[in-house]
Amino acid sequence: MEQHYQLLRKHIEEICVLTDEEWDVVAQRFTYKSLKKHQFLIQKDQLVPCEYWIIKGLTKAYAIDSNGKEHILQFAMEQYWTSDFNAFQNKVPATIIIDCIEDSEFFCLKWEDREYLCHEIPKLNHFFRIKSHYGYIALQQRILSLLTETAEERYNNLIKKMPKLIQRVPKKLLAAYLGVTRETLSRF
Amino acid sequence: MEQHYQLLRKHIEEICVLTDEEWDVVAQRFTYKSLKKHQFLIQKDQLVPCEYWIIKGLTKAYAIDSNGKEHILQFAMEQYWTSDFNAFQNKVPATIIIDCIEDSEFFCLKWEDREYLCHEIPKLNHFFRIKSHYGYIALQQRILSLLTETAEERYNNLIKKMPKLIQRVPKKLLAAYLGVTRETLSRF
Repeated sequence: MEQHYQLLRKHIEEICVLTDEEWDVVAQRFTYKSLKKHQFLIQKDQLVPCEYWIIKGLTKAYAIDSNGKEHILQFAMEQYWTSDFNAFQNKVPATIIIDCIEDSEFFCLKWEDREYLCHEIPKLNHFFRIKSHYGYIALQQRILSLLTETAEERYNNLIKKMPKLIQRVPKKLLAAYLGVTRETLSRF
Repeated sequence: MEQHYQLLRKHIEEICVLTDEEWDVVAQRFTYKSLKKHQFLIQKDQLVPCEYWIIKGLTKAYAIDSNGKEHILQFAMEQYWTSDFNAFQNKVPATIIIDCIEDSEFFCLKWEDREYLCHEIPKLNHFFRIKSHYGYIALQQRILSLLTETAEERYNNLIKKMPKLIQRVPKKLLAAYLGVTRETLSRF
């Protein structure tokens, strides 16, 4: 477990260097969670108390339309933050579902604890601002991709941006993410 | 102009209260820009030095696909921040175009000035974190909407969320945003 905490400290300190005393305050606010493949991190219509930092594993965030069809928003793996951020921030029931594609381990941070930490250690605002900003950019790129690219262009860009992800995500899910059939995917 | 600055101060102080001295430091870093209807705020392939806070007016952010077709990402009006945030943050050429649907006025904040302000007045990190977070949530909702909703559902949700916007955006652009023809839009 100590090793996991050191990974998290390294992740935070890439943006915001902490003293040992500050790190102790931070570490105390994170809790550990482990889930098996196929288990849910977030279920539809439930409240979402935490945002989650992935220590190890792979998750998918998706939504289900009124016909019961599944639509994948994003995959996330080691060192990514994931949650239904609307539900998390605004304390409303989740509209996004997140489940595990592999056995996964997380550090969980409650909304109150994040605000507490940002208040106690103001430079953490900088860390969360930068993370949120990069998250925003990733989503803007996802929208641009959905609006303007063909499935094949989306596939090629995904290979460029997240080569490791492509190897780990089952072909069926990759096809769903790109909005094509498995047959079309295998032609790319 | 003083009135515009007071609007900006009010906007910031909804999240982060400033002393008069702090506000003076902030105000000095914003510059004013005014554009006529149809003029560009951001052009494709150009560098994007600023993010923009809309004092007055209405803009659309869009991308053009390889067939020359226009795809609208977002509309923005008074009190919204807009930019190509990827180009702005990572100092790469713009992939998004932003132009004015109405005569518009902006306060512009350069990347260096935003970082300077967050360094000089650390509580501004909190302001920009919260703004970025809400921006993230809005984009997540836009993706969910694109993936799971019909055009009519998208239209009804837009009426609920941004009733004033619907009245100001020309029908042709609204149809493009929803991904339907003008004839389909008039049936909703």
